[in-house]
Amino acid sequence: MFVCTGFAAQSAKEPLAPFTFNRRDVGETDVRIDILFCGVCHSDIHYARNEWRFTTYPACPGHEIVGKVAEVGSKVRKFKVGDTVGVGCMVDSCRKCSACQAGLEQYCDGMIGTYGAVEPVIGGPTHGGYSNAIVVDQDFVLRMPEGMDLSTSAPLLCAGITLYSPLRHWKAGPGKKVGIVGLGGLGHMGVKIANAMGAHTVLFTTSPSKVADAKRLGAKEVVLSNNAEDMAKHASSFDLIIDTVAATHDLAPLFALLKQDTTLVQVGVPEHPLEVAMFSLVPKRRAFAGSMIGGIAETQEMLDFCAKHKITADVEIIPIQKINEAYERMLKSDVKYRFTIDMASLKSASAA
Amino acid sequence: MFVCTGFAAQSAKEPLAPFTFNRRDVGETDVRIDILFCGVCHSDIHYARNEWRFTTYPACPGHEIVGKVAEVGSKVRKFKVGDTVGVGCMVDSCRKCSACQAGLEQYCDGMIGTYGAVEPVIGGPTHGGYSNAIVVDQDFVLRMPEGMDLSTSAPLLCAGITLYSPLRHWKAGPGKKVGIVGLGGLGHMGVKIANAMGAHTVLFTTSPSKVADAKRLGAKEVVLSNNAEDMAKHASSFDLIIDTVAATHDLAPLFALLKQDTTLVQVGVPEHPLEVAMFSLVPKRRAFAGSMIGGIAETQEMLDFCAKHKITADVEIIPIQKINEAYERMLKSDVKYRFTIDMASLKSASAA
Repeated sequence: MFVCTGFAAQSAKEPLAPFTFNRRDVGETDVRIDILFCGVCHSDIHYARNEWRFTTYPACPGHEIVGKVAEVGSKVRKFKVGDTVGVGCMVDSCRKCSACQAGLEQYCDGMIGTYGAVEPVIGGPTHGGYSNAIVVDQDFVLRMPEGMDLSTSAPLLCAGITLYSPLRHWKAGPGKKVGIVGLGGLGHMGVKIANAMGAHTVLFTTSPSKVADAKRLGAKEVVLSNNAEDMAKHASSFDLIIDTVAATHDLAPLFALLKQDTTLVQVGVPEHPLEVAMFSLVPKRRAFAGSMIGGIAETQEMLDFCAKHKITADVEIIPIQKINEAYERMLKSDVKYRFTIDMASLKSASAA
Repeated sequence: MFVCTGFAAQSAKEPLAPFTFNRRDVGETDVRIDILFCGVCHSDIHYARNEWRFTTYPACPGHEIVGKVAEVGSKVRKFKVGDTVGVGCMVDSCRKCSACQAGLEQYCDGMIGTYGAVEPVIGGPTHGGYSNAIVVDQDFVLRMPEGMDLSTSAPLLCAGITLYSPLRHWKAGPGKKVGIVGLGGLGHMGVKIANAMGAHTVLFTTSPSKVADAKRLGAKEVVLSNNAEDMAKHASSFDLIIDTVAATHDLAPLFALLKQDTTLVQVGVPEHPLEVAMFSLVPKRRAFAGSMIGGIAETQEMLDFCAKHKITADVEIIPIQKINEAYERMLKSDVKYRFTIDMASLKSASAA
């Protein structure tokens, strides 16, 4: 074991504060990564505040991690010291089930989350990327494409793949009309990626102030979803809609926009169930589905796709000391469009 | 125009009573059918009582119609006088849209329902099969397979196709574990058809009294859906679940039974929206879909499939004079499993 420093919440009601903890030593197939940047995901807030009711404290979030390889185990062949790498929402899985065999480790019942799961060697909760270093099996480490900016690419590891995977699975591309609902951390990645895939990309928002920005990011059209007249013009015309909104909201106006035999995919995870009226689904055999991040191979594919299309996130870089303030601003949608923590700031925090 | 007799509701609060109305004369491509039997669908109750809020009175329901061809138009080539035929939930559609071109007339925006739509020649609401005769374009008339019992096959025209279509679309068959939720008019057809398709068919019910009957009808297993322990044994094991329950109910225990990338299809249409928790869908990329009857070609395929496998509905035959009592019994699930009206009874009613 070796000592790491980071920021963690000690309970659902406390702000995140400096925190010292142990990580396992590098095993034969492990990679130790010195963390350079970590994106701030809405899930981090849910976890730190126990809003999904499975948090183990102390809770050190962060699953949009980029850094440099500092040490490799004796059997590591995929990476060497000095490589620039990423870690997303998973650090291991069972490797045997049908999901793992299909490269869909995110749907494995034994998937080990980057934070909040059980650390298999030293016990206790796994701790995430709000820290100076992390040890991960090489099979769950991603290679960051050469030349990709690190502070803006960290959010690809969760926000990017969360949109890329359903866009691929439900076949976004040329000739398809694809809707993205909500322009936040997830939504702005969806607009960029769907547009790069060649889909006619339409952004739905309730904020007139976001119209110009959505077009800059790649949306061909922007529709104010609380304007019934504008919504009606798009009735039964979409091939796919991906909904990133993590609050309770009315789905019926969105279902009405889908063609026959198409799907509304929810990737935002509201705390409470959403209501689905049967008249939204039955008359056109529409579907409502969920999707969760992507497999490891698909995440690498996404990184390479984003590098090719020069896509990264729009970020505001913060020091770790601003994390609690950042959470409050995220809850007010006051960020364009993702916070990334510069982990160099951790040194001054630890010294404090 | 010619005069027909039937039973209709004059308002949402009144019982169905004898009713005289006009139908259009037989046009060039029309078939006039003398109705022999008409199944009683739960939708008939919703419509007669305006529970879906689009009823036009007087309301004469019935869309599980079998009878004999009594007259054909000059250009009718598909049928001749004396043929035994069926009519389901549709009597026409636009014939031009992509749904119609694909043989999915049920999803055409211009689909004309057997009752409650606008009659294109004489105006007013279309009237259904609780009557002595009906005039339908030949393209929306089904051929009843030779030797098929007519009183028990009438319910195939709605209940049968409502289950057959999603079972085919979502690929029920050998090697697949398929759940049917609810053992009523729809559910009992689902058990028979899924079993005949070769699927390992499991019936979910809250009624211990239905276990033996479900097995007689073809269910390989019966699970009491309010027994959490029994339900847990089937976690993540189903390839498809079709839910026929038309009342508000908890979907979360059903979603938990689905494998990754599979679908819960709702064919019962509850009056109020159903709640869907994101943790039911997201972690295994599950979907929730709707499905509505089937196209004309598929309905003919279903009738031929049922004839081959000797499948018809389990029915209780009633005279039209018992229709209001039948509705009350249906609302208490007191029918095994479908009422069929013997239209010969209409003569005594009209004379009364």
